[in-house]
Amino acid sequence: MYTAEIVTVGDEILIGQIVDTNSAWMANELNLAGVKVNRITSISDNAEAIIRALSEAEKNADIILITGGLGPTNDDITKKVLAGYFGSTRMIVHEPSLKFIESFFIKRGIVMNELNKQQAEVPDCCTVIPNNHGTAPGMWFEKGKTVCVSMPGVPSEMMKMLPDVLALLKKKIVLPEIFHKTLMTYGIPESELAKKIEIWENSLPNDVALAYLPNIETGVKLRLSTYVSGGKQIIEEEFSKLVTVLGKYAYGYEPDTLESVLGELLLEKVATVATAESCTGGRIAHRITSVSGSSAYFKGGIVAYSNEVKANVLGVDPADIEKFGAVSSEIARQMAEGARKTLNADYAVSTTGVAGPTGGTVTKPVGLCWFGIATPDGITTFSRNFIGDRHGNIAAASSVALNALRLRLIEKSYSY
Amino acid sequence: MYTAEIVTVGDEILIGQIVDTNSAWMANELNLAGVKVNRITSISDNAEAIIRALSEAEKNADIILITGGLGPTNDDITKKVLAGYFGSTRMIVHEPSLKFIESFFIKRGIVMNELNKQQAEVPDCCTVIPNNHGTAPGMWFEKGKTVCVSMPGVPSEMMKMLPDVLALLKKKIVLPEIFHKTLMTYGIPESELAKKIEIWENSLPNDVALAYLPNIETGVKLRLSTYVSGGKQIIEEEFSKLVTVLGKYAYGYEPDTLESVLGELLLEKVATVATAESCTGGRIAHRITSVSGSSAYFKGGIVAYSNEVKANVLGVDPADIEKFGAVSSEIARQMAEGARKTLNADYAVSTTGVAGPTGGTVTKPVGLCWFGIATPDGITTFSRNFIGDRHGNIAAASSVALNALRLRLIEKSYSY
Repeated sequence: MYTAEIVTVGDEILIGQIVDTNSAWMANELNLAGVKVNRITSISDNAEAIIRALSEAEKNADIILITGGLGPTNDDITKKVLAGYFGSTRMIVHEPSLKFIESFFIKRGIVMNELNKQQAEVPDCCTVIPNNHGTAPGMWFEKGKTVCVSMPGVPSEMMKMLPDVLALLKKKIVLPEIFHKTLMTYGIPESELAKKIEIWENSLPNDVALAYLPNIETGVKLRLSTYVSGGKQIIEEEFSKLVTVLGKYAYGYEPDTLESVLGELLLEKVATVATAESCTGGRIAHRITSVSGSSAYFKGGIVAYSNEVKANVLGVDPADIEKFGAVSSEIARQMAEGARKTLNADYAVSTTGVAGPTGGTVTKPVGLCWFGIATPDGITTFSRNFIGDRHGNIAAASSVALNALRLRLIEKSYSY
Repeated sequence: MYTAEIVTVGDEILIGQIVDTNSAWMANELNLAGVKVNRITSISDNAEAIIRALSEAEKNADIILITGGLGPTNDDITKKVLAGYFGSTRMIVHEPSLKFIESFFIKRGIVMNELNKQQAEVPDCCTVIPNNHGTAPGMWFEKGKTVCVSMPGVPSEMMKMLPDVLALLKKKIVLPEIFHKTLMTYGIPESELAKKIEIWENSLPNDVALAYLPNIETGVKLRLSTYVSGGKQIIEEEFSKLVTVLGKYAYGYEPDTLESVLGELLLEKVATVATAESCTGGRIAHRITSVSGSSAYFKGGIVAYSNEVKANVLGVDPADIEKFGAVSSEIARQMAEGARKTLNADYAVSTTGVAGPTGGTVTKPVGLCWFGIATPDGITTFSRNFIGDRHGNIAAASSVALNALRLRLIEKSYSY
């Protein structure tokens, strides 16, 4: 199997000013093309660091993709270093690139300077990969069995050049087919999940790899990947076994989310939903409406942060707030039913809790959250104790609420 | 100057499934602490790769921060590899961590299994850094002059553990004093901002560095940093000049956010706020309530996604929706005033627009958003045309809305 290393060059990455999204893009594309990425390295605009990264990568990979450091200013030195590293004797002007750069500046009505012209110069030992969206051409170097491709660091330029690079690679070497698929689960912690699927996991074919990817909002993702021929079918079969084992915990395949799956269920049932949020403060509504087309099933939501709004807009009985406290089963119940009626929806979910860090008491600690699910058939309430910070508690509570709605839609009588 | 290398472990990074945001966070924090980051390396959950990364980093840096691969499942091997690399003879149970893990599971009402218990085991040669937010403890190793710290890969856990790691580092080595402060700006694009502050920027002392950090939700941040003694005062003086230049565009200093600054203004004026959101779908309410203590000034919000809710809950005239369309100045006006009245608040903000990718027309394209600001003195409306994707448009619109409220609170008659 062919291997690759990715090297991104730029001081802005090393000071944490920007997140290196280029690497994830390239890694994903390489994997989809059947190339295994061994490592990703981010280094500064510094000759020594670039040479060190190149020589280490050369020892460990067949393909090196290097981005960044190709700008017109003095701190961009990647091209010069690559020329030296791959034994170029001189720089030559790549005429098509020069013509493109000239037209690029004319189009923008900007006067081109000497530095911009120099961007069309490339080491004589490389093959140029045209950049049709910017001024720095890509460069393809070969040394022994290693291929090294230099691309611009501007994400949009790199993303548009990469297919050409992969096409050239496929002409040179035969790449294997890779298959992968990711199952989404919610409502079961990683360790419990591992126990539950242990037998299935142990019986996986040797050439099928499993990865656990936990996330507070999406739940634990399970990814299967394989390079074997017929891998697609093997993975489909393994997942169909796994879905039986997991039952209600499995809610879809990437890129499904709790909110997108909920949306599909509502569309299928031609039903509508509404929200009544206290502690989650609009997070649930935000997630539901982050799905394009959600206006077909989302009527709206009430963020009932004050007791006054709980009473006046949702119709919660103020005497009950007094009696049970705002964070209680009874108020969650009245909020859910109030949202269902006020917003004229088939289903409604409510949250009332203590997001923290302040506001907790002995009986109602930070992290406690009551949920209500109102349906045409009645109302259910339940509670959870979250132990994250404010942000984490809001995120977790919004996922529990969306998942509870999902479960309620797939099964009438459901214990949360 | 002390140097560091960051190593992130996880197959999910190398296949491009997740973007490595941990590295940028750690790089930023290390830089703020006066440590230069030489390189960032992402590798797979593979013993050979981890050892290679450690031995290379050891040669080139004083400090190694390594995250990930500490989960309870079989594919997480970092702890075992670190134990071997740093010459541990056996694993020992770290009692405080075990107690914490036990309480962690009790709080969640989940039964702990053997794999979870094993997370409290650490190599005998390390110092434990407690993880108060998850089950994998941090581990501090020393070898010669090199310090290597292993932290969980879950971003929230790593982010909460890092300050403890930096505090321990400062006990061990003398880090240079670095001063830095970040001014928050909103409502002015980066290129326009650069023009506006050109004279000020050119007159900055040589040993004071300026960085532009653009962000769709927070606006452009401007960070000044310096290692010179008396740097704190120099930076304060420079910023006080800059704030005069920037006027209304400067809204605070990190970690201020538009929503936290808005909250302070409301507390100061003893005023309350409410929201009426269509296209932003709850994002504004979510941001306001992400501030601890927001219940003091946030009455609540209506996510009026359907026209029915706009009419029934906010009191928007259905005839006007028919006449002007839901995405219009008139409806934004009625929504804002409706929220102010229904939720009994002093101020209210409304949004109605086309988040995309579908739903646009020639006269009301994707990205168009109308805003309304209702106050005790009257209502103002204005519009913006955003050019992002759905997620970007929602984010940008929520920031414009929060900023408009802020401006309205600091200045009575304000043009947005």
